Amino acid sequence: MSIREEVISQAKQAKKAARKLAGIPTDVKNRALLKIAARLEDSMDEIIAVNNKDMEAGEKAGLSRALLDRLKLNEKRIKDMADGLRELVNLDDPVGEVIRMWKRPNGLQIGQMRVPLGVVGIIYEARPNVTVDAAGLCLKAGNAVILRGGSEAINSNKILTRVTAETAVEAGLPEGAVQLIQTTDREAVRVLFELNEYLDVLIPRGGAGLIKTVVNGSKVPVIETGVGNCHVYVDSAADLDMALDIVFNAKTSRPAVCNAAESLLVHRDIAEEFLPRLYKLFEEKGVELRGCDQSLRIIPAIKKAEEEDWSREYLDYIMAVKVVESFEEAVDHINNYGTKHSEAIVTNDYSKSQRFLQEIDAAAVYVNASTRFTDGNQFGLGAEIGISTQKLHARGPMGLKELTTTKYIVLGQGQIRE
Amino acid sequence: MSIREEVISQAKQAKKAARKLAGIPTDVKNRALLKIAARLEDSMDEIIAVNNKDMEAGEKAGLSRALLDRLKLNEKRIKDMADGLRELVNLDDPVGEVIRMWKRPNGLQIGQMRVPLGVVGIIYEARPNVTVDAAGLCLKAGNAVILRGGSEAINSNKILTRVTAETAVEAGLPEGAVQLIQTTDREAVRVLFELNEYLDVLIPRGGAGLIKTVVNGSKVPVIETGVGNCHVYVDSAADLDMALDIVFNAKTSRPAVCNAAESLLVHRDIAEEFLPRLYKLFEEKGVELRGCDQSLRIIPAIKKAEEEDWSREYLDYIMAVKVVESFEEAVDHINNYGTKHSEAIVTNDYSKSQRFLQEIDAAAVYVNASTRFTDGNQFGLGAEIGISTQKLHARGPMGLKELTTTKYIVLGQGQIRE
Repeated sequence: MSIREEVISQAKQAKKAARKLAGIPTDVKNRALLKIAARLEDSMDEIIAVNNKDMEAGEKAGLSRALLDRLKLNEKRIKDMADGLRELVNLDDPVGEVIRMWKRPNGLQIGQMRVPLGVVGIIYEARPNVTVDAAGLCLKAGNAVILRGGSEAINSNKILTRVTAETAVEAGLPEGAVQLIQTTDREAVRVLFELNEYLDVLIPRGGAGLIKTVVNGSKVPVIETGVGNCHVYVDSAADLDMALDIVFNAKTSRPAVCNAAESLLVHRDIAEEFLPRLYKLFEEKGVELRGCDQSLRIIPAIKKAEEEDWSREYLDYIMAVKVVESFEEAVDHINNYGTKHSEAIVTNDYSKSQRFLQEIDAAAVYVNASTRFTDGNQFGLGAEIGISTQKLHARGPMGLKELTTTKYIVLGQGQIRE
Repeated sequence: MSIREEVISQAKQAKKAARKLAGIPTDVKNRALLKIAARLEDSMDEIIAVNNKDMEAGEKAGLSRALLDRLKLNEKRIKDMADGLRELVNLDDPVGEVIRMWKRPNGLQIGQMRVPLGVVGIIYEARPNVTVDAAGLCLKAGNAVILRGGSEAINSNKILTRVTAETAVEAGLPEGAVQLIQTTDREAVRVLFELNEYLDVLIPRGGAGLIKTVVNGSKVPVIETGVGNCHVYVDSAADLDMALDIVFNAKTSRPAVCNAAESLLVHRDIAEEFLPRLYKLFEEKGVELRGCDQSLRIIPAIKKAEEEDWSREYLDYIMAVKVVESFEEAVDHINNYGTKHSEAIVTNDYSKSQRFLQEIDAAAVYVNASTRFTDGNQFGLGAEIGISTQKLHARGPMGLKELTTTKYIVLGQGQIRE
């Protein structure tokens, strides 16, 4: 079979599986998740041995230390994957929920019922744990899933998918519900892009380059995830101690993730007091500041920011800083340079807090809290399959509900129109 | 300016307008809608005169009678457009609604607030009333709109957009909130497809060809609307009088619309009794039946259905008919050939009614009622911008809510993570 034929055959099987999955009761799905979790733990040695092959190949290929770390599977990480599946069991099954139901004057009862999306395609990069996390979320929401991981992790992904898929079938889920694209050839991705007859959505998880490729190339509807150039704006009416805590946390608690802050805006009225205090904290932690002219005047030691710094997602111990003349300038700056992910204001001014909530266009808008909370678990929504930065279908952390759609159910007693 | 430059400049202006529109209070939007309605009625003679130019050109170009009818504007149709805008005033403004809000253990308050999508692009065909209907819905939901109508209606669309846009600005809405692509060159559409930086969604309204072009070509997220190969399945446990009413209504009350039924499935146990009665009714009304072998055995006078008939959206007084061996065959047939629009079962069997609701994959699934009810007004949702047959974002009739997205608002008192 050619790559094209193989991918299409997988997609067809996924669609078939999806039809069956839609009607499978919650307890069967839950038992399958528990069984997969146990089987992953039982297969630990084998998984680690296979992962070692990917690690060796990666070292030979000269992958960065950070990439190798993301690629690595050990006992703890496999245990975490298994526990992730067990947590899904405790989450409510969204499928079958009737969100609302009403009666029309002609007696028709109309309801809106949650149903699975159908077939979900996930295109992701080096982290093999996504394989199990994504499969678990899709199954719980009644969807079939087609996984396409990075080439560095191909052996790890293969064994994880094999264990997951085989155990799912043993537990009563349909054949084809979990599938991995077996080749690392890019042709397979181009084929996926065409398959809107079989796939209901494609979700890219990874860097900006991957996401752009998928958005530009796919005829299948896409949910964009993740790129975060997040800002903290410290207003003239901020409690400066609180602002220091929030900026420090948003930048340094985990710089490599999308909800970490990348840019800092400081109102000119408090810049002279605030920036030196922040600089001291950042210097101790090893955070580099890149500033506007005003910032440089206040702290001459820092590097000058270039225009492109206002758009950068550093994912590192670096932060761009700009002194703004007004609240309005801060809002404009964020709406112009932000990626519509997570944006925060620190202020004690009621009116500005309300205006910020209204005027900032982003998936999550914060008053007096760290941007780092944008996360399914932190929001109390349970596990997430990604954070949507687009406006259609889902915005912000995407959990089980966002992996469903609805259908109208209409109960009549012979009604006809007109 | 080149076409490309002109379209991009319009899109930029729309994005600017969208930011302002998002904050405009409901009463300002409502006053604008009322003012536009009045101005359209005041401009009736001018609009009709301009529309006559389109009609003359259309006649010369040999447009079909049906197309010419859709193109035509008269006093009644202009009055209907104006009344459509007035009805929007009575609908709740979805913008600003906090759908839910909860408190986390760390004290963070997290809410999900409805906000406009931003810039909506509508690509549509001959009916010029879409210009005003779509603009009204977008404005009420706080969105800027870029309209691209069919070339046959270009003069009508220009004057309708000019009146709408000018009046909107007079009433306090931002410049650029309603814009029409001025050229009929197809290049303009190709440019729109690329503008995901400025457009948040593209909604095609028209035939299957138009919809396919947009889905395949656009990088901007698309909501597919409207193609309806809708089925009625008359089960062995159906009340046959009720079934006759429903099939007759679903097929003949308005055959040219997407929620009209195109295919009929009849359980073999009642086919011998049901089909001759239906045939009699259809013959009087001039409806052509195209049947499977079994149907032909029962009514030899009808035409034989080809394989492609099971997939056709006739939009005409034609219906495909198939005798099925079982409930399961009916469900499979619908899921295989349907366009996931509206599907109905007529039965008095409780278990089959429930299974049909669960197993059919469509935007609207009916028990004992005509498919013709799939419509925003009939569902009680108010005016609609189209009927989505895709699964992402919106499914079924799309009203004001479906022209919005949400953002998370997070209210803290200094919370940081970990």
